[in-house]
Parts: sequence; structure tokens; C-alpha cells
Amino acid sequence: MINVGVFGLGTVGQGVVQLLQENRSILEKRIGKQIRISKAVVANPDKKRGVDLEGIEISSDPQFILQDNSIDVVVELMGGLDNAGEVVLASLKSNKTVITANKALLAERASEIFPAVYNSTGNLLFESSVAGGIPIIRTVKEGLAGDDILEISGIINGTANYILSRMTDEGIAFEDVLKQAQDLGYAEADPSFDVDGNDTAHKIYILMCMAFNGIFPYEDLFMEGIRGIQTADIDYARELGYRIKLLGKAKKTEHGFEGRVHPCLVEEKEMLASVNGAFNAVSLTGNFVGPTVFYGQGAGAHPTASAVVSDLIEAARSISNNADNRVFPLGVSAEHLKQYKLLPMDDVVTEYYLRFTVYDEPGVLATISGILGDQNISIRSVIQKTKAHAPDEPVTLVILTHSAREKDIKDSLGKIDKLSFVYESTRLIRIDSQ
Amino acid sequence: MINVGVFGLGTVGQGVVQLLQENRSILEKRIGKQIRISKAVVANPDKKRGVDLEGIEISSDPQFILQDNSIDVVVELMGGLDNAGEVVLASLKSNKTVITANKALLAERASEIFPAVYNSTGNLLFESSVAGGIPIIRTVKEGLAGDDILEISGIINGTANYILSRMTDEGIAFEDVLKQAQDLGYAEADPSFDVDGNDTAHKIYILMCMAFNGIFPYEDLFMEGIRGIQTADIDYARELGYRIKLLGKAKKTEHGFEGRVHPCLVEEKEMLASVNGAFNAVSLTGNFVGPTVFYGQGAGAHPTASAVVSDLIEAARSISNNADNRVFPLGVSAEHLKQYKLLPMDDVVTEYYLRFTVYDEPGVLATISGILGDQNISIRSVIQKTKAHAPDEPVTLVILTHSAREKDIKDSLGKIDKLSFVYESTRLIRIDSQ
Repeated sequence: MINVGVFGLGTVGQGVVQLLQENRSILEKRIGKQIRISKAVVANPDKKRGVDLEGIEISSDPQFILQDNSIDVVVELMGGLDNAGEVVLASLKSNKTVITANKALLAERASEIFPAVYNSTGNLLFESSVAGGIPIIRTVKEGLAGDDILEISGIINGTANYILSRMTDEGIAFEDVLKQAQDLGYAEADPSFDVDGNDTAHKIYILMCMAFNGIFPYEDLFMEGIRGIQTADIDYARELGYRIKLLGKAKKTEHGFEGRVHPCLVEEKEMLASVNGAFNAVSLTGNFVGPTVFYGQGAGAHPTASAVVSDLIEAARSISNNADNRVFPLGVSAEHLKQYKLLPMDDVVTEYYLRFTVYDEPGVLATISGILGDQNISIRSVIQKTKAHAPDEPVTLVILTHSAREKDIKDSLGKIDKLSFVYESTRLIRIDSQ
Repeated sequence: MINVGVFGLGTVGQGVVQLLQENRSILEKRIGKQIRISKAVVANPDKKRGVDLEGIEISSDPQFILQDNSIDVVVELMGGLDNAGEVVLASLKSNKTVITANKALLAERASEIFPAVYNSTGNLLFESSVAGGIPIIRTVKEGLAGDDILEISGIINGTANYILSRMTDEGIAFEDVLKQAQDLGYAEADPSFDVDGNDTAHKIYILMCMAFNGIFPYEDLFMEGIRGIQTADIDYARELGYRIKLLGKAKKTEHGFEGRVHPCLVEEKEMLASVNGAFNAVSLTGNFVGPTVFYGQGAGAHPTASAVVSDLIEAARSISNNADNRVFPLGVSAEHLKQYKLLPMDDVVTEYYLRFTVYDEPGVLATISGILGDQNISIRSVIQKTKAHAPDEPVTLVILTHSAREKDIKDSLGKIDKLSFVYESTRLIRIDSQ
């Protein structure tokens, strides 16, 4: 029997209890052992929960689980950085296996947490921390373990994707969709975490550490959210054969590792372009497997519980006190774990969508393309909207560039936006070039 | 060090050799051990191969590997049912771990092969047998191990999907696309295996054994290929919001397990509808994870080698002579392995696309819908093409039904096709109802 202690009985915690009850007979056949939650630690032990907690002893004292040597596996579902971090570190120190859904903790305290796993005979499993029910961590760690992974692109925040999908399908402005999503409970009262990219950054960070087998400085990840996306951009993108998605991207290039979160134009023929609503998808490209995509529900009590329980099953199958047979926490043995740097965003090379709002004077296109050309930026296509109705009304010019260096683009726009015919700051959205 | 013996050095075998060479340093960091192919058995040892075989001893005698106790893992890439079967069974008997890409063998000799794994301390790994580089076996076995899997739908034959995609995009008839695919080397001279559904049947069979944790009678799987699909069907399907795909489907219903291979109308908003060309995708629905889709290259030397090597890595990580810690071969421990039956196709309930070709007489629709109604088949929508140009030219009537029992549909069509106004046999395509 595998004896489990759970920290936190919120939505996901209750989902895990429910899954273990509903699928009990299937699980026992699959593992050949019983998984039993014997203890839970919660902030308020007297609170009513929506699931049957029979057989689970409940306390508000972390030591109730941490000091119990009969607990094999600790499941951390409390969230937050401080208390959760202490629970995870203390559990690893006492050689327990830890399962956590806490992406913020894994990303922001990576340089403490991961080395601690290497010093423990316990293990750290975190399938539920990225993309909910999609078994993407396991895919990187095992399914594509033979591949040199070259690129990861993820739609890994359901709220942001829901908002962009409704903006695309219904032509509603960002603020209005956000307001409706908040009223329906799909978005938080403070939506910053979802729409400004932090949550996507945590998740792509975890994926890149796994895929590239090392630890990166989390604070160096580039992050830009979706608040600036206007329905006009969505419409022009569509005219050009693209959808706009918030992507987490990680890439191994000859110049270094890229790690970035920002809205992207995705070609409509790509699978990621078809990912709508609150769904998640991660695309991984390996040097042998080629392109792959993994799609499913990225959040919610049931899909996340599915991921937590898959980790419980792995723990149950492999608990043998023989840490040498485990899959290494970040995919490589301790002596090969690298401390990587990230390529500065200025040095990233990609394609760009630029939307200029200008007065329709002679020579505008020539001037803009001249400045771009001077910075070695070549133009792939241009949409110039026909003459303005009134002579003093600005018009729109959309330019797609070939691959260019971020710094060159930024420098060019700095110059262009100072020109007299420019009505408002130029909008820039990166293109997910394949 | 993990010592490997390979049977077969064709396309996939050479891909494996190449991957182990190119990704050698990454692999050693990830496994902490070296994987070395020391021996290969091939039909013609003198044949020139396109990869560097240095360090690999080659023979045409199976015993060269089978009787070598220093070999930890046997990789079977020779194909076929008889010799390959003996290699797999003999290796398991001597407690070696076996990796195979041989879907035909696993499906058609399942009742010999799988029980043999349970009697061995070796293991049987077969990620490469289904959907090439997509780690779908591992996903069923581990990633979704907490879920009661309810349904699997797979586009798992690249040739059939390539043909249907070109028919859809370019309006070319089946025979013409097939001919071109054969000329380009995308389709075999004898395409039966791909276009008549056998290959899809082998793969969906393996997935259903894994997902439902038991062995089914392979010969009871229902199988219908894509030779009968006409561009008219593709066009009507599109008009109704569907794409036509060859699916392998497995389903757990209250009446029993369904296992079937046939063309299907897939709603264009579903991810599977976006899978084009030679790509593969598998959709899995679990009772907690909900719907998921896994997409990638289903064939080819490199993607298949990626899958074989992921199994080599699993073998390398877990070889400890402690068979109790392995994931069970069909996902459950020996005493829980079931021998299942399949629901007869007559009892399958799904929705149908029916294309009638009839003379445009008064009362035709009333007569047809009357016969369908008598069998409890209700109509969801009708497309009736306007009057024929010449009075004696037949017209098309397309009907989509609500869920109905296959036998009732077949009985109705038997009656309808005998009516005087029917010009030719009615075309039936099942709908992938969600």
C-alpha cells in the first residue's frame, strides 16, 4: 500500500480524492497496490468539502504529515511560494517522494527545489503543474527522451486562449471579453496572472528545464501579455492567414536558448491555430521525431486530478528505495545538470507583424521600408488600406517582415514612430515562424 | 551499459543506429548508462547499408543473438508474423526485454505474445508499433493511467490520410490519388494493407488492449476501407461541416466494447479534422482527463526510431531484474488481465450519413423517411438537390441520421435499395458522433 499525505483540499485536492474513489478498482488492477490518502493538512480543518473524506485524518499543522514516517508520498496542492516551498523541501529532505501542481514554486524557486531532489532518494513529480491533464512532462521525460528537443511552443493558459478565441470568433474587444469572462467566473478578479503572461511563463519555464535538462534564470524570461491585442490585429492577421495566440516559446538555437512569452501570429494551417476556448496544447519538435502536438484540458479539478494521480501511480510503481532507477528529476543525472543562460530578447531572431497608423502622404511606404531596409529588415508582404475617407484621417499599413533581430526591429520602430506622418505608436506582434 | 541485439536493419533499424550515434551524448546524460548495439541479425549480412555499422557484429543466424546471455534487450524490426514471433517469444522466455515495432504480430498473435510477457522477468515495449513518433502507448500506460478510458479515435494510417486529404483539397478521385501516391513511393504497389484498413486495425487493436487492459479477439474487429469514398461524399460532407477520415475507433459502452475501422465524418471543428497529409493523431477520452489529442508523424525512419529509442531508454532505466516494479505489459497485473469479447457491429449505435441516388418522383423522401422511421431511425438533416436537368437523370438525396443501431440502418437500406425509384445502391458513411 502507498500511504499518501495531502497538503490542500481545494478544487484540485477534492478532485484527487474523488478520482481515487471513483476509479479505485481500475487503479488497483493497474498498480497492483492500493493508494490511500491517510492524512490531509489544510488551513481550515472544519470547512465543509464537497467530497467524502472518510478515512482521511485532517489537521492544520504541517508537521502532522511531515513528521509521519509512514507517509510515502506527499502531495502539495496548497499553492504559494513560501509555505509550499518549505513543505516540498522538508519532504524531499526526509526522502519522501513529492507530487506538486505548483508551477509558480517550481519556476520561481527552481534553483533550490531541483538540486534538493538530486540530494534525496525521494522523487519530485509535477505532471499537473503544466497543461493540466495533458501528460506533457512525461512526454518530454520519457516519450521523447531519445530526441534532442529543438523547440517548444505552448498554448498553456486557458483564460488567455479563451479571451483571444472569443475576440477572434465574435470580434469583441479585449476589455469586453475579459469583463464577461470575469462575470462567468472563467477569469479571476485580478486577471494579471493569466493575461499578462506570468502563468504561461511559469509553465514554459518548467518545460524548457525538462527539455533542455538544466536550470535557467527564471527572471530573464521575456514576457508580454495580450492586453494590447486589438480586434483590428486579429482581423488583419486573419486576412493574412494567421490566428493570434498567446504562446510560451522555448528554442535551442546556435546562438543560445530562447525563452519567451508573448502573443504570436500562428499560421492557420498549424494545429496550434485550431486550439480554441479554454483548451491547451503544446507543440514539441525533436531532431528525430519531428513536429508533435499534445492537446487537452489545461485546467479544472478533474483534468488536473488525472495528472496528479498519474504521478501517484508512477510513485507507486517505482517506490523501491532504489533512486538509481528513477527517471532523473530534470531528465539528466546530477553531474550533467546545467545552469544555463537565456539569449537576451534583443538577440532573438523571428518574423514580425507591424501595424502602422499613418497619415496618407506620398512617400510613406518608401520612408518606412527605407528605415527597415537600413537595419537589414526585409519585407515579406504589405497590406496598404486604400485612401482615407477624409484627408486628415489616418490609414493603416500592415507589414510582415522576414526574419529579423528584435533589436533591429525595435531600433527601426523607434525611428519610424518619431516621423511626422505617424499618427500613433506602431503595433508589433511576433510571428511564430516555422 | 545496456547491451542490445537488433533483428533487422531496414529503414527503421538504420534509423535507430543513426539516432543512437547522433544523440549519443544527450542519451548518456539522460540515462546515466550507455546503450550499445553489439549484434544484429539480418537476412543478408553482406548488403550495404546507409549507416555506419562499426562495432556491430552481423549474422544471419537468429541464435547469434538469442543464445547470447550478455544481450539485455532484443529489438525486433524484421516484421512478419512467424520468424518475428519466434524471436519475441524466445527472447521473453530467456527473460530478455523485447522491443518491437511489429503491430501485425502484436495484434494477430496477441493471445500468445502478451501472456508470455507475464511469464517473463523481461518486459515487452512497443511504442513504435502505433503512430510512429507519437508516444501514445506510454500515454495510455502512464500519462492517463489514472483514468477510466472511455473512447479512442485514431487517424493512424498515413497513406490513407494522405489520399483522403488530397481528395478533399484537390477534388481528385480515389484511384487517381492512389496512382500518384504509388508513383511517388508514398503508397505500396499493393495498397490493400493501408487503404482497406488492416494496418489501422492492428494499431487500434493494440491501443484498445492497452486502454481496456485485456485481450480481444482480433478477428472480430470490424473493418471497412476507403476505396468506396467518392469525391461527391467528400463535398457533401464538407457542405454539412465535416471532413471524411479513416478512423480506428474503440469505445467502452454500457453494452460492451466496440472495436472498428471505417471511414468517418468528423466535424470540422474537431482537432482530428485538421490532421492532414501523412500525419497521424490519436484522440483519447478519459473519465477525468476529458478529451485529449496526440499528433505527430506516424511513420518514417526517424520518427519510428525516436519511438524505438524511447523504449530502449525505458528498458535502460528500469533494468534491475525486479519485474515487480515494471509497468504491467497490458497495464494490469496478470491476475486482472481479461479476455474480452467485442460488441457485434450490428449492435453498434452511431450516427449515419446516407447518400441516396434516386429518380426525382413525388413521394421519394416520404417513402425513404417512412422506412427509416419504421426502424426507429430519426433524421437529423436532409440535403435534397434541386430538380434534375433531364427528367430521367437521377438526383442525390443526403440524409444525416440521429444515433441508430447499425442493424436497423442496414435493414432499412436493404428495403430502400429495392425500391423502383432507387438508381444505385445507397452509400453509407458513419459519423464520429461525440
